Amino acid sequence: MMLAARVDGTAVTDNWSGIGIENRGFQYGDGLFETAALIGGRVRFLDGHLSRLQHGCERLSIPMPQSDLLAQEIAQVTAGHERGVVKVIVTRGAGGRGYRPVDGVASKRVVALYSAPESLAADVGIEIRWCTTRCARNAQLAGMKHLNRLEQVLAQAEWRDAAIAEGLMTDTEGELVSGTSSNVFLVIEGVLVTPDLRYAGVAGVMRGQVLKIAQAQDWHCEERAVWPEEVMHATEVFVTNAVRGIRPVLKLGERHWNVGSVTRGIASALGLW
Amino acid sequence: MMLAARVDGTAVTDNWSGIGIENRGFQYGDGLFETAALIGGRVRFLDGHLSRLQHGCERLSIPMPQSDLLAQEIAQVTAGHERGVVKVIVTRGAGGRGYRPVDGVASKRVVALYSAPESLAADVGIEIRWCTTRCARNAQLAGMKHLNRLEQVLAQAEWRDAAIAEGLMTDTEGELVSGTSSNVFLVIEGVLVTPDLRYAGVAGVMRGQVLKIAQAQDWHCEERAVWPEEVMHATEVFVTNAVRGIRPVLKLGERHWNVGSVTRGIASALGLW
Repeated sequence: MMLAARVDGTAVTDNWSGIGIENRGFQYGDGLFETAALIGGRVRFLDGHLSRLQHGCERLSIPMPQSDLLAQEIAQVTAGHERGVVKVIVTRGAGGRGYRPVDGVASKRVVALYSAPESLAADVGIEIRWCTTRCARNAQLAGMKHLNRLEQVLAQAEWRDAAIAEGLMTDTEGELVSGTSSNVFLVIEGVLVTPDLRYAGVAGVMRGQVLKIAQAQDWHCEERAVWPEEVMHATEVFVTNAVRGIRPVLKLGERHWNVGSVTRGIASALGLW
Repeated sequence: MMLAARVDGTAVTDNWSGIGIENRGFQYGDGLFETAALIGGRVRFLDGHLSRLQHGCERLSIPMPQSDLLAQEIAQVTAGHERGVVKVIVTRGAGGRGYRPVDGVASKRVVALYSAPESLAADVGIEIRWCTTRCARNAQLAGMKHLNRLEQVLAQAEWRDAAIAEGLMTDTEGELVSGTSSNVFLVIEGVLVTPDLRYAGVAGVMRGQVLKIAQAQDWHCEERAVWPEEVMHATEVFVTNAVRGIRPVLKLGERHWNVGSVTRGIASALGLW
């Protein structure tokens, strides 16, 4: 449930106003977003989110709103709340004839607070599945959390069974990419492995934290092409997401896992559980 | 310039209200659109646009608004206008936690009228270029005019030279797909050839009309995989678009063409010029 929102700094309260129909985010998905966890009244990894947003804006040539302004508006929508999900959307604003962007148009920013999902940061193992919806490969868009997310929508529409918390997606060539709204890590012969996302997927902020911890602690870690069969041979599997933290995978089809020591070590090093 | 617009039947007049920030079109590009030409106070190929919209809604499991309702709202926004561009957007509405859609939510519809581009339906040959931005391949999304259009935005941002009217895009495997906002036809050894769009691209309404005419007149026509080299070897090249009709290509890099007889025959058979 949406608790509070601001569009370009102005509070909006209902589901009608806020965005003009000419906004390029609405017309073309021409923008980016961030979804962060509010825990104890603070946005977790705020710097990581703002820095990824900045990087995405540079890649798409969308003017990045001032970080101070965003931080201030985040403080405004989260004031008085301890837990929740903060969503920031930045679009190229309105304007341009057809697809072509015009220069000198200010970007449009939305900062909103949603109530927290029940499972927020809980240490619960999950069951996952494979999705049949594929991720298209396009290196020019890979890694960004942009607003073109039809593939993820179609993938999540594939199942309704509430016992299954996430679905893994492969790309059109069959490589493993990620979960529908998470990144995936495997432990294979003691090595931490995650897809390199060179053609598809979102480079998650929590994924970045895991890689940073692994590097700091000198664990052997590989970002590389990963194939679906490797998941079944992994000794540990977990998924990461900025809001839900690290979730160990306990079941995928007929394959079962326990919560392993590498997963525990990383969750602990990140102060998650 | 936007001349008139209705959101779910209600007239909107400015660039602020209209769409709630939770609308899934804005959040994920979770929707479809149509862009049609208003000529002499009538929407050209209205049935073709509504039928493609219906087909897209079925593929994405988005409830299709009643055609009568859309037709009525189109009549309302176009009332008193002779020429212009009609844009219809249908999104999955608001709702759902994250990417997953929820059942029973009414779709959101936008019907808007824009002023006509100067070149509307004019018989002018154009100069085109190649784009470096690629189209990703995903058969599940191919052909639809959905709202995930970042690739087209980035492709059109590649050039500002007003003398160049369109850019051709290849997919990530190098196959020719289309123009950034048009379909492309080649005449090769007397045969009309157009990319089959099995992995990428939008199956344009004007493209459909050209194929229909070709079939009705027993011209030899192939929808198939097309490679960029074939463009240079074609004896005629033209691009199609519901708003701009059929535009013969006169120049691409160092290659020049005249307006050929096949192109003229098709434009004439369609009553365009």
